Amino acid sequence: MAEDIAERVNRLERRIAHLEDRAAIYQLLAAYGPAADSGSIPEAVGLWADDGVYDLHAQMMRGHADIADELGGQWHQGLIKQGSAHIVSMPYVTIDGDKAVATCHSRLYRRENDGGYRVLSCSANRWELERIGGRWRVRRRVSRRLDGSDESHKVLADGFAAEA
Amino acid sequence: MAEDIAERVNRLERRIAHLEDRAAIYQLLAAYGPAADSGSIPEAVGLWADDGVYDLHAQMMRGHADIADELGGQWHQGLIKQGSAHIVSMPYVTIDGDKAVATCHSRLYRRENDGGYRVLSCSANRWELERIGGRWRVRRRVSRRLDGSDESHKVLADGFAAEA
Amino acid sequence: MAEDIAERVNRLERRIAHLEDRAAIYQLLAAYGPAADSGSIPEAVGLWADDGVYDLHAQMMRGHADIADELGGQWHQGLIKQGSAHIVSMPYVTIDGDKAVATCHSRLYRRENDGGYRVLSCSANRWELERIGGRWRVRRRVSRRLDGSDESHKVLADGFAAEA
Repeated sequence: MAEDIAERVNRLERRIAHLEDRAAIYQLLAAYGPAADSGSIPEAVGLWADDGVYDLHAQMMRGHADIADELGGQWHQGLIKQGSAHIVSMPYVTIDGDKAVATCHSRLYRRENDGGYRVLSCSANRWELERIGGRWRVRRRVSRRLDGSDESHKVLADGFAAEA
Repeated sequence: MAEDIAERVNRLERRIAHLEDRAAIYQLLAAYGPAADSGSIPEAVGLWADDGVYDLHAQMMRGHADIADELGGQWHQGLIKQGSAHIVSMPYVTIDGDKAVATCHSRLYRRENDGGYRVLSCSANRWELERIGGRWRVRRRVSRRLDGSDESHKVLADGFAAEA
Repeated sequence: MAEDIAERVNRLERRIAHLEDRAAIYQLLAAYGPAADSGSIPEAVGLWADDGVYDLHAQMMRGHADIADELGGQWHQGLIKQGSAHIVSMPYVTIDGDKAVATCHSRLYRRENDGGYRVLSCSANRWELERIGGRWRVRRRVSRRLDGSDESHKVLADGFAAEA
């Protein structure tokens, strides 16, 4: 019986590790918006692997310095001074060992001068994640405006293919 | 002591199974939007039980063929060509054995010709879920526009009643 | 070996308790919107500790009676009759024993007479939570419109500081 118990404990450890991975990935994605909208650049950038990629619409950022440049630049700083909300939706997540893919929507809202908020963009997102030094980080984030393009549709559809 | 351990392992197995159910239900809801907005009709429809119901505003769809007709139809195909985002909020979930209810908001955003996105609808949603062949699927989804109607309010309020 | 197993079971119990806390906190936040938008005042108010605080923009509510007054008042009742959606984003959560902080965005959508929905506000939120009698409740919720103010940015940035 002791061995049977040991086997059940083994299985529990594997199952709980999987749930902890899912929780850590949710937490990672939930950090991006609050970091970006508060101008917490080191915290936002630190979600990526050191050489991680942020492939945003027509703009390709490679590594922490590129991403920090974007978040410190005129467009992003203007946004957060006006009042912005970068929000990701609850993701669809597939995990394979030390790699994972999270697929979700993102939206960018900006405060307008009439006091309301305008939805500047709705995008398809693919987050390729990797466990590095025991911590999940972003290897590559691809974001494409949902503008009817095949490319934007493929970003979403590929999230399911990851499981096949 | 071995028996004490066995009892603790029993309890852990029940607790982890409950958390796995919650995670699977989040995953199920998180799949709908990416599937719908990318035109992944088999993936979207496959979230429902074979004879599952999608009760959407004034429209009642019963079974996979009905739902596939809607997603393949002129309205939905026009939406995704224009650029759309069907997004559900993080749900309130109650689980009872092989049945569960998830209550949340959904929104539909559509790209406009000025490049921004319009919020076409905000709805109250009730997802009645069932574990079928070891997998959670949608038995019935009810969605009602939040237009002040008692019916829309009841869809949300009933989510709490499920726990009583 | 039995002792080794006992130690592994101890660790599993701690790990699963942490995941259950995270799940309960998600559930707590997911309950607010459906309760508020359906006019389920006791359910909404009951998310707070008896003497909990809701610090909303310029308005400070202390205790259940204050929060119930707001939700039963003219502004909120007018909103839900018109059709409203109070939606919180997936939160960033830090837990320390019986206390926790959840940081997220919230949005308020209202149906307009043209049938679409207007984003009335996007706000930064800090939920200070406490386990009271075995149940997580809101000790203090702070919500600030994202209008470019330092205060609104600090609400978001402080969510990360909680971990330091």
